[in-house]
Amino acid sequence: MIKAAIGIDIGGTLTKFGVVGEQGLCLRTHFFNTSLYRDVDTFQKHLYEEIQIMIHSLNKDINIRGVGVGAPNGNYFRGTIEHAPNLQWRGIIPFVKKFRKYFPDIPVVLTNDAKAAAIGEMVYGGAKKMRNFVVITLGTGLGNAFVVDGRLIYGHDGRAGELGHVNVRQNGRLCRCGNRGCLETYVSSTGIKRTFSNLLRTKSGKNNLSNISFEELTSEMIYDEARNGDTLALEAFSITGKMLGMKLSEVVAIMNPEAIFLLGGLARTGKLIFEPTLGSLEKNLFPIFRGKVKLLPSKLKEKNAAILGAAALIQKHLNI
Amino acid sequence: MIKAAIGIDIGGTLTKFGVVGEQGLCLRTHFFNTSLYRDVDTFQKHLYEEIQIMIHSLNKDINIRGVGVGAPNGNYFRGTIEHAPNLQWRGIIPFVKKFRKYFPDIPVVLTNDAKAAAIGEMVYGGAKKMRNFVVITLGTGLGNAFVVDGRLIYGHDGRAGELGHVNVRQNGRLCRCGNRGCLETYVSSTGIKRTFSNLLRTKSGKNNLSNISFEELTSEMIYDEARNGDTLALEAFSITGKMLGMKLSEVVAIMNPEAIFLLGGLARTGKLIFEPTLGSLEKNLFPIFRGKVKLLPSKLKEKNAAILGAAALIQKHLNI
Repeated sequence: MIKAAIGIDIGGTLTKFGVVGEQGLCLRTHFFNTSLYRDVDTFQKHLYEEIQIMIHSLNKDINIRGVGVGAPNGNYFRGTIEHAPNLQWRGIIPFVKKFRKYFPDIPVVLTNDAKAAAIGEMVYGGAKKMRNFVVITLGTGLGNAFVVDGRLIYGHDGRAGELGHVNVRQNGRLCRCGNRGCLETYVSSTGIKRTFSNLLRTKSGKNNLSNISFEELTSEMIYDEARNGDTLALEAFSITGKMLGMKLSEVVAIMNPEAIFLLGGLARTGKLIFEPTLGSLEKNLFPIFRGKVKLLPSKLKEKNAAILGAAALIQKHLNI
Repeated sequence: MIKAAIGIDIGGTLTKFGVVGEQGLCLRTHFFNTSLYRDVDTFQKHLYEEIQIMIHSLNKDINIRGVGVGAPNGNYFRGTIEHAPNLQWRGIIPFVKKFRKYFPDIPVVLTNDAKAAAIGEMVYGGAKKMRNFVVITLGTGLGNAFVVDGRLIYGHDGRAGELGHVNVRQNGRLCRCGNRGCLETYVSSTGIKRTFSNLLRTKSGKNNLSNISFEELTSEMIYDEARNGDTLALEAFSITGKMLGMKLSEVVAIMNPEAIFLLGGLARTGKLIFEPTLGSLEKNLFPIFRGKVKLLPSKLKEKNAAILGAAALIQKHLNI
């Protein structure tokens, strides 16, 4: 009998899921297109069927102990997905309540994607022996999760971890939340696109990406140019890292973490983002903290990181 | 037999101490001048003798269960006072280790003054039923403590809670920590003095405090002028509150507290500081948090608040 958990990562584009055994061994994983399912009921039905197929295909005696779900704007306390701008399901979705009908005998737990990533790092990744650390995910937005004394900060009503929406510039860029100058309008894949486009507009000289429209431009194109030594692309990374480092210095002053993990697409560009971030972090730190905070990439295999995070959520919940 | 704890609050000017019974009843309190004791050994000897006199003077059958100490730059994990700029004792003082010789049979616990205040508020004050809250103390500097899920954040090496040293202005005011633009150079008794002096220099018109030197100027003088409707003094409060509110909006985004307590001299000016702070906090908040965070004064009697905080520290430690 193999003890295992189901880990599900719901993203705006793809939903990834897998059966995860002890020690974080991914027994099997699969994915499908989230946006094909315009309402959550048909999505859940399809997801359940896919999971059943997966479990049977393993052809082993497996005891599924629980289901962990990572989702954008996921609320751990309420088991809901609330007003997720990157999903088609509007309003407050009682995801766990609905999904329980498929799994009436085992616990189903949901949290947001950054918190799931933090738990994944804590259970299987680079934070295994850490009690105090921070996770920043740099994707379409800026996700974040804070672990204090071995436990995730959820806050008074489960909404802790909105660092993406702290102000970094008065009357700055308009954010999808309605405010101006939010951190994630500068520090995220979308943020670096906006920064690079600004640089293109304001600086002279030729650039390989001059003829690409903002819609067509992707953060990957900017990474590629930066890797090839393009000055503007490198400057966009430098500006992004400086802003992130400055804000992280404040996080360190508040909670004195051992390490900060940078995850997500932008983080996978390695030193392009790590170097300016670390430089700015150290420069802005209160002196007693200088040289003491580690800035680290994920230790989980990129492909399965989100599934492992979701599975770790339920495994931590069950203490298995 | 009365169960009680000793609460000690070490300040740059005064050391206050008392015998505190159950339910936070101060059986007796006393104070003396900290700065008379140039080294910590003679300070501790005097403090111990005073405590013995106090206990005997009560003439009751008292069982002292422990000693709690609040001190500037106090480190809970190490029991040390580390490089406190407002005390005469230089370097790292192993306060608890030394003080234990006077109390070999009961626990002695030390933390910094803001953390002691937070525990005081949690055990005896306005945060009795709260699991997630923040304490900001506005004195010579800006102290701060964060309670998450009922527990104080200490961080990786006990240095969490340095919000006074986050940057609020690039190349701003020089801070005693060596950096420029730290929050506490603007938001503290010293900060409001600096702001008011700047306003005096840059604005025209007569002011009651024009002839007072910066050395002679006290924050109390500015409070008095503001209470009398002086425009510049009111503007100094408004600027201070705006900066504090902006920074608190970031704290809320990170940890989603139920309430923020403002304590210390500047907080006791009431709406002069609460109104601009709350206005700026709400304006800068991520929309989902608006109208949900309470900004509160202490519920402890001012006179004994620091002693109660220190006593609560040991009472929480012992679970009495």
